[in-house]
Amino acid sequence: MATITQVSPLAPAGFPDLPQIAGVRFATAAAGVKYTGRTDVMLAVLDAGTSVAGVFTRSSTRAAPVLDCQQKLGGDSTGPAAILVNSGNANAFTGHYGQASVTEVTQAVAKTTGVPVSRVFTASTGVIGEPLPHDRIVSRIEDMNAGLSGDAIEGAAQAIMTTDTFPKGASAQVEIDGKTVSIAGIAKGSGMIAPDMATMLVYIFTDAGYDQAALQSAVSAMADRTFNCITVDSDTSTSDSLLVCATGAAGVDATGDAGFDAALEQVMRDLAHLVVRDGEGATKFIEIRVTGAMSNAEAKTHGLSVANSPLVKTAIAGEDANWGRVVMAIGKSGATADRDRLSISFGDILVAEKGWVSPDYREEDAAAYMKAPELVIAIDLGLGAGKATVWTCDLTHGYIEINADYRS
Amino acid sequence: MATITQVSPLAPAGFPDLPQIAGVRFATAAAGVKYTGRTDVMLAVLDAGTSVAGVFTRSSTRAAPVLDCQQKLGGDSTGPAAILVNSGNANAFTGHYGQASVTEVTQAVAKTTGVPVSRVFTASTGVIGEPLPHDRIVSRIEDMNAGLSGDAIEGAAQAIMTTDTFPKGASAQVEIDGKTVSIAGIAKGSGMIAPDMATMLVYIFTDAGYDQAALQSAVSAMADRTFNCITVDSDTSTSDSLLVCATGAAGVDATGDAGFDAALEQVMRDLAHLVVRDGEGATKFIEIRVTGAMSNAEAKTHGLSVANSPLVKTAIAGEDANWGRVVMAIGKSGATADRDRLSISFGDILVAEKGWVSPDYREEDAAAYMKAPELVIAIDLGLGAGKATVWTCDLTHGYIEINADYRS
Repeated sequence: MATITQVSPLAPAGFPDLPQIAGVRFATAAAGVKYTGRTDVMLAVLDAGTSVAGVFTRSSTRAAPVLDCQQKLGGDSTGPAAILVNSGNANAFTGHYGQASVTEVTQAVAKTTGVPVSRVFTASTGVIGEPLPHDRIVSRIEDMNAGLSGDAIEGAAQAIMTTDTFPKGASAQVEIDGKTVSIAGIAKGSGMIAPDMATMLVYIFTDAGYDQAALQSAVSAMADRTFNCITVDSDTSTSDSLLVCATGAAGVDATGDAGFDAALEQVMRDLAHLVVRDGEGATKFIEIRVTGAMSNAEAKTHGLSVANSPLVKTAIAGEDANWGRVVMAIGKSGATADRDRLSISFGDILVAEKGWVSPDYREEDAAAYMKAPELVIAIDLGLGAGKATVWTCDLTHGYIEINADYRS
Repeated sequence: MATITQVSPLAPAGFPDLPQIAGVRFATAAAGVKYTGRTDVMLAVLDAGTSVAGVFTRSSTRAAPVLDCQQKLGGDSTGPAAILVNSGNANAFTGHYGQASVTEVTQAVAKTTGVPVSRVFTASTGVIGEPLPHDRIVSRIEDMNAGLSGDAIEGAAQAIMTTDTFPKGASAQVEIDGKTVSIAGIAKGSGMIAPDMATMLVYIFTDAGYDQAALQSAVSAMADRTFNCITVDSDTSTSDSLLVCATGAAGVDATGDAGFDAALEQVMRDLAHLVVRDGEGATKFIEIRVTGAMSNAEAKTHGLSVANSPLVKTAIAGEDANWGRVVMAIGKSGATADRDRLSISFGDILVAEKGWVSPDYREEDAAAYMKAPELVIAIDLGLGAGKATVWTCDLTHGYIEINADYRS
């Protein structure tokens, strides 16, 4: 198995100071699911009345915990809730045994914490096709329950890592009716454990109150503009999960508050960007801004086509201002484009317009720009008002090393 | 610019002996479009009465020669025809200048060869966004016309290469009404020239006669099962072109003949496989057989999702029997799948069935199998009668080297 010890060059300086969120407490344990010498289970317990919204992988081969969460979402939100996540084993493609493991774990959490089993959400990330050693997890639940603390979110972010190279957190605070409410979230993603695929797990907590059905609808829309606009390698995990929990402990109802919604979306965007920054082998963080498309959906199709193109991603890895590959990726996307209305900029440098290279374009300007670790590629289709922004990273030898250079 | 000198490890032993096709003559020239010391233009002239059918890239940013060919296809087939192809410059994303270059070249070919300009088909492959130096090509047409020969197809295959590591040819012969007709084809593809994308060009000739409209319809269907079932990196060129020319010189009408159609499709499949075998950085030739899907179209969607998955392709590069990544790629494809009816085999080794690893599966068997240079991954969805086969190669450091490890 590949051991990746180097922290991504795109990582932030350190884990941020996250505000404590009233109404949620965390605990972690080293259960030895697969790893030794590190934590691999996190438990979060949420006070009664917490609204929980979720977005999950659309994979048709999704893992047992995902199916269980999807069944439970949207239920009665008056009681307390709990989230239990393990790393080291994805409990995916484990047949009927997988569901049995979820039942064992959720029942044990319910029994120990007093949370109704219908409100115990789990996720698993790690190796796939191997039975989850759920007994190891179950045996640590009492200890974790006894050690729950409101000040342990960084430890939770660490426990859910697989081969992520850094723990990921983001936060925001908003004034509503003169009171401050806080949002804090953690994520894991883009690490890899053989023989598995990268999985993204995201947990966001706020002490604001938010009607559960309205929260679900807001979070689904925000996920489409944040987590569903990032791509590392176009592959989709069987286990991707996002939960947003609004405890209401601050005594403020944020349902539909525009300022709160903007702050929540910002936290989601920040966490999404951190996942890209930890993309396997990434050395460049790339923002692709598409404007002038026939619709927002077509803009996103173009953006993801560029973001997923191996030829675009390798060109950027090589610091090559290869705008021809961007043209190619737009052409193949399936969304509407007119070669002769298309313009492309790298940063502030207009590269191509009206179906040809810009007359002012100087290759040396673009070559200098491409050396930066953060790049913007702006594409205007010249057709309509549709727009979208997507984020990705480059495709490097590091990606091949992580994903090919081992024998299982 | 990267210089790739090593021939693909998946290349055949040598260029095959192709039968001469009555009614078509070839010539090549070293016009210095971009390269020095090698041929870079090929001219093929086809006798009067040749039926011509074509299939082209669906890119919305396609190159000027593609647009010109598409306009001309399906026209009167009584006169002679000509094909002129240059390597070194793609004449793509060159604005209105691009169309003017096509006009210059096609008019010069028409004037010199006596072929009506409406039957002169061109293609260009190489650097994009730079004006085609069409004068250099035009200046060699008289010499080429004087040197046309029925026995020069291998030279033609060499002249259209960019950084292909070997020239590609395939052939078949069929008996119809006691007479032998021949099919011979050449292709280029999966080489790369900075700053451009891989382009696939294919030219197939037969001395059989074939009604032009019927040929077009047959070739379109065959292309969907051959060239449109291969993928190296999921990227689509702005210039991909396939022409099939039936000269009729053998005095045999093959229109709708099942044996002929099968032979033509075999030649197309052979050439498609050669393109994959020259895939950038390829060390493994992979056949993905999908059965039991809801429809043939859904089977192809699943197959291409597996074939294009960077995680599947890197696992194969690492000789890792990582069936979990195959499950992932099926799950994300968007086509129908039921986790618990899915079965996956690597060669003859049943790996997964009924939503979990097969009870008879031994990792060491699969690990040994993965060392072969040619691999079959068989996927049965267990849902219906839909099936498709697609072909791809692995994703290696060689791909990154070719596409990233240079500065333009």
